[in-house]
Amino acid sequence: MSSHPRTLLRVVLLLVTPTLLFAQTPAAPAHPLDALTGPEYWAIYDVLRDSGKMQPGTMTTSVLLHEPAKDKVLAWKPGDPVFREADVILLHKGVTIEALVDVANRKLESWKERKDVQAPVLESEFHELDEAMKKDPRVIEALKKRGIVDLAPVSCFADPFSYFALPELEGHRIMMGGCVNAHGVYLSWSRDIPGLQIKVDATDKKVLQVVDEGITPVSQAPVNYQELALAPRTGTTPIDISQPIGPSFQIKGSEVSWQNWRFRFRLDPRVGAIINLAGIQDSGRFRSVLYEGSMSELYVPYMDPALNWANRVFIDAGEFYATGQTLKRVRADVDCPSNSVYFDSVSADEHGMPVIHPQVACLFESYAGDPGWRHFEGHQLSGSGARVLVLRTAAVIGNYDYVLDWRFERDGNLRVAVGATGIIETKAVKAKDASESSGHNTAGASDEFGHFVAENTVGVNHDHFFSYRLDIDVDGVNNSFMPMRLVKRELKNPMRKSIWVAEPSVARTEKEAMMDIHLEKPSMWHFINPNVKGPLGYPTGYELMPGTTAASLLDPDDGPQKVGAFSTHQLWVTPYKRDEFYASGIYPIESKGDDGLAVWTKSNRPIENTDIVAWYTLGFHHVTRAEDWPVMPVMWHDFVLRPFDFFPENPVLTLPPKP
Amino acid sequence: MSSHPRTLLRVVLLLVTPTLLFAQTPAAPAHPLDALTGPEYWAIYDVLRDSGKMQPGTMTTSVLLHEPAKDKVLAWKPGDPVFREADVILLHKGVTIEALVDVANRKLESWKERKDVQAPVLESEFHELDEAMKKDPRVIEALKKRGIVDLAPVSCFADPFSYFALPELEGHRIMMGGCVNAHGVYLSWSRDIPGLQIKVDATDKKVLQVVDEGITPVSQAPVNYQELALAPRTGTTPIDISQPIGPSFQIKGSEVSWQNWRFRFRLDPRVGAIINLAGIQDSGRFRSVLYEGSMSELYVPYMDPALNWANRVFIDAGEFYATGQTLKRVRADVDCPSNSVYFDSVSADEHGMPVIHPQVACLFESYAGDPGWRHFEGHQLSGSGARVLVLRTAAVIGNYDYVLDWRFERDGNLRVAVGATGIIETKAVKAKDASESSGHNTAGASDEFGHFVAENTVGVNHDHFFSYRLDIDVDGVNNSFMPMRLVKRELKNPMRKSIWVAEPSVARTEKEAMMDIHLEKPSMWHFINPNVKGPLGYPTGYELMPGTTAASLLDPDDGPQKVGAFSTHQLWVTPYKRDEFYASGIYPIESKGDDGLAVWTKSNRPIENTDIVAWYTLGFHHVTRAEDWPVMPVMWHDFVLRPFDFFPENPVLTLPPKP
Repeated sequence: MSSHPRTLLRVVLLLVTPTLLFAQTPAAPAHPLDALTGPEYWAIYDVLRDSGKMQPGTMTTSVLLHEPAKDKVLAWKPGDPVFREADVILLHKGVTIEALVDVANRKLESWKERKDVQAPVLESEFHELDEAMKKDPRVIEALKKRGIVDLAPVSCFADPFSYFALPELEGHRIMMGGCVNAHGVYLSWSRDIPGLQIKVDATDKKVLQVVDEGITPVSQAPVNYQELALAPRTGTTPIDISQPIGPSFQIKGSEVSWQNWRFRFRLDPRVGAIINLAGIQDSGRFRSVLYEGSMSELYVPYMDPALNWANRVFIDAGEFYATGQTLKRVRADVDCPSNSVYFDSVSADEHGMPVIHPQVACLFESYAGDPGWRHFEGHQLSGSGARVLVLRTAAVIGNYDYVLDWRFERDGNLRVAVGATGIIETKAVKAKDASESSGHNTAGASDEFGHFVAENTVGVNHDHFFSYRLDIDVDGVNNSFMPMRLVKRELKNPMRKSIWVAEPSVARTEKEAMMDIHLEKPSMWHFINPNVKGPLGYPTGYELMPGTTAASLLDPDDGPQKVGAFSTHQLWVTPYKRDEFYASGIYPIESKGDDGLAVWTKSNRPIENTDIVAWYTLGFHHVTRAEDWPVMPVMWHDFVLRPFDFFPENPVLTLPPKP
Repeated sequence: MSSHPRTLLRVVLLLVTPTLLFAQTPAAPAHPLDALTGPEYWAIYDVLRDSGKMQPGTMTTSVLLHEPAKDKVLAWKPGDPVFREADVILLHKGVTIEALVDVANRKLESWKERKDVQAPVLESEFHELDEAMKKDPRVIEALKKRGIVDLAPVSCFADPFSYFALPELEGHRIMMGGCVNAHGVYLSWSRDIPGLQIKVDATDKKVLQVVDEGITPVSQAPVNYQELALAPRTGTTPIDISQPIGPSFQIKGSEVSWQNWRFRFRLDPRVGAIINLAGIQDSGRFRSVLYEGSMSELYVPYMDPALNWANRVFIDAGEFYATGQTLKRVRADVDCPSNSVYFDSVSADEHGMPVIHPQVACLFESYAGDPGWRHFEGHQLSGSGARVLVLRTAAVIGNYDYVLDWRFERDGNLRVAVGATGIIETKAVKAKDASESSGHNTAGASDEFGHFVAENTVGVNHDHFFSYRLDIDVDGVNNSFMPMRLVKRELKNPMRKSIWVAEPSVARTEKEAMMDIHLEKPSMWHFINPNVKGPLGYPTGYELMPGTTAASLLDPDDGPQKVGAFSTHQLWVTPYKRDEFYASGIYPIESKGDDGLAVWTKSNRPIENTDIVAWYTLGFHHVTRAEDWPVMPVMWHDFVLRPFDFFPENPVLTLPPKP
């Protein structure tokens, strides 16, 4: 705890750039969508403390900016008062409490006990449950049976259920896990003690049940990758990126200007970077593209019915963001190049007091050596190199690291990319290797539900599904979603029997806008402004172009899939609602799937020529391989918002050849 | 014409790198898979001239290295004689002649007249047909009707048919086209004179038919993008990539060493860069991955049944490579960064004499600022930046520019990327804009088969399909293709109803290996060596991971689709045959689809535990947009070969944090 003055979005200037001035962000917010500042967290703290409602032991699990209604934000002008509210989630003796605080006026607006939901899990719950489990005689006995009497390197963990997994969860904050033995290693990933399952009540910190299936030795797979970098391999000559007179972007508060792009961003404790008011400065006027964009949720179901594995389904952002925050530190040279500037973020700790997280985002111009456009003919090779502005954060949720990019390109593209790296979850098995399955993951073998990555160590099959919330506002608030289907047409032509034609049609309701990718039935996903025509008579628009992605293979009525139901379709479109932010709902822990995208869209609301929000599912299945061990190379997936009849012509022609 | 000494693969060193030595490539080949050298082209020229078989007017359409049988190449050692043959295609009075020349021994091995095929089109045919058309009274009359009497800026073009489009093609070299009027512009793209179609006999240089459908004015859409760069927009600060002590790769002849990668490449006049003998240097021994990889063919069908459009279907490499060669110049800063080295190529002209094409490939290390791997936990953020070695060429086939990359990554990935840019093909229409279709491409409107990109100018719908030939040799020649299907399994578990499991199965025959992408039926495409097991008991392997791609929507029995039939599936696997190189066959012009991937695989040959070749189809549909005019931003597509149980663990852990 500390009461030193705090700054939000403090720019860490690693590169001395004498010609550029970065504004120090003020302690008070300059815009209604700015992140909560240190003083604001303290104001919220004071309002709650002075409300008379806080009791000893009431924990703060979440303090988030409650965004003002969109019309208020759009009407706001610099100099106007900045209206500020905060959503607070508290936890008191297993009961979740929602509080809404008027920050600017230091007033508690509402206070509501919610017995039907579970607050996100806290770091202190993990610690207290660890202690409780390690004191339980049944656990001590089970460990002793395995020859483990030194409990210093042992920790016991219990994860919340990200879905309503068992009837007994009703009204109880129950978690399930086991123990790990980190003896001999730095980190305990892969050191699960197999065959031991512990069920706990997280409110009473009581062990409810210990299941011991018998002894399988803890994996001894080598994992000390951390020390290898001390003596790195040689033979790599230096490569340097430099910008001798500084970057081309300007930062003013939380607003970024770069080439013809303008956008704001804040670093939210739950979903990470939130992009706001992104658009194009076009001949002196600002043209909106994206009112708001963020990763909304993250669904990671594992695919093993074994003890301690059937329940491994994570709705990562919603379950775990209260353990610090979703974003973690990024590192110069590793995550971000030397021409980056860095940003800190602030979140509330378990007492509601602000904590600075240094260097959790970077912003840089990237030039990979690629062309942006080119044509060669006759004597002329025209073109120019491609430069991209990257806003990068990294979400680290336990074992996995996700590199999360918003990449602004000069041709008007906005690319969203996810790089998955970090450590896979593994299961210790008795078999040493894949000999028993003849190397082919056969049924009944130790690698039936995964793949050996080291001796006695199986990386378990799983999925990753991200839901991106994209409040698209092309040239204004009212937009339509217009899928353009490519449909085969038979011809009576002496030379051709068939062609395809593009058939655009405007989706009237949410159900018409649920899109699945089929190669044999291709469609393009256009977001248009039916009220604004470009010079050629088409509505101005942006297209959402999917990258490689995946659809969930689970039963729709399976518990996990009801909460991760956004993974059923690759695209959803909803009308804008101020409180629809999280694709799996606000409270995924023990959820029955009664909140979120699949629930909201059941009423099949109209979405034509109104304020609409797109939800893109970026997913991939993961069968692990030896090369994912002990830490994975980054695997990237992305999608693109690209202008489609937004500009009257290619907007990059006037760029110099040099990137 | 010139008889100065020529060098092959001359390295243009733009960056002074005192510590590195780039070998000057010798005039004689150093390896059986090296490109034909200047002296070798002359040897072939002499053998043909002295054979007594060449007649006045016999044109050389193609001189390509005839690759030695694979077993001979693999058995070859430095110091052994380099066995060299060349395939020559000649054209004499409409008759195609195939000659095989023993280059090293200066001997004509075979000479065969082929009346059933058409040689690739020559630049001189274009010129002579242009002249013939512009002299034809019917053409002159049709132009006059349109007010065009100044024929200096007019050129008339005729393209070959890339498939057997009409019965009258039988035994004749017939082409079809029209005229363009480049008055007022630098290049004639978009300046088609609409409504005028000319059919010609390319052998006799005779106009066979002139169809005049009536007058539509030539598009006047602005296209002078070439001059814009003279006064580029300001506001972009410099960004520099530098390697002060030079790149980390070494080049010895046509062999490249970089980190643990080793490979050779040559620049082939028909298919461009051919990668050979790519593999990993692993603890002192070379482990093969890819015996050979190249873009094999390129199929671009347009989707408009109109006059002069129904026939626009291009099998680009096979039809047009004789007009110079497929690859064209790349430019520093635009196509390749400042730390690149450049390579020339050599092809034969229409007399069989060698021509140097300067600077058609570049090789560079790319660092975009991205992480290669990372994990953050506790006090440590481990990881390292990602550096990639890129071999880049650009194929320019008329209007389109394709940037073709082979990207070697340090984690063992080999990424193949295609960037499409250049100029779209447009059709002039009477309607000024999309008002008549209410902006929605309605049936019967001018934009029914495309999209307005400028006034009176419609970019016509089309597809791009690339077939990549990948002779994968994981740890040796004999491999198997093992699709791993992810299949849902119902569970009887109190907590879960369903999971998926991975079900690998070895494909026994070509038909079992025809793969289509379905999100609801996902599969992973593994190429394994069943004879080599990794330390965990799995066969060593590489996985082919598709990127976003497309499948053809055309009727399988449609003429164009029979020639571009490789686009029916996203993956094919064949047994290695020395002469199966081109996915649409050797002679696509006027082809009935009787050669190529779809034909070879009809016999459903066995492919298990033998020398196999993978054929990946990279495709995309293209509906044009205003931003594609007058020249397109680059759109990238890619796929990856990635190690799957090839290494015992992640091979990049020992890299230093700095990229």
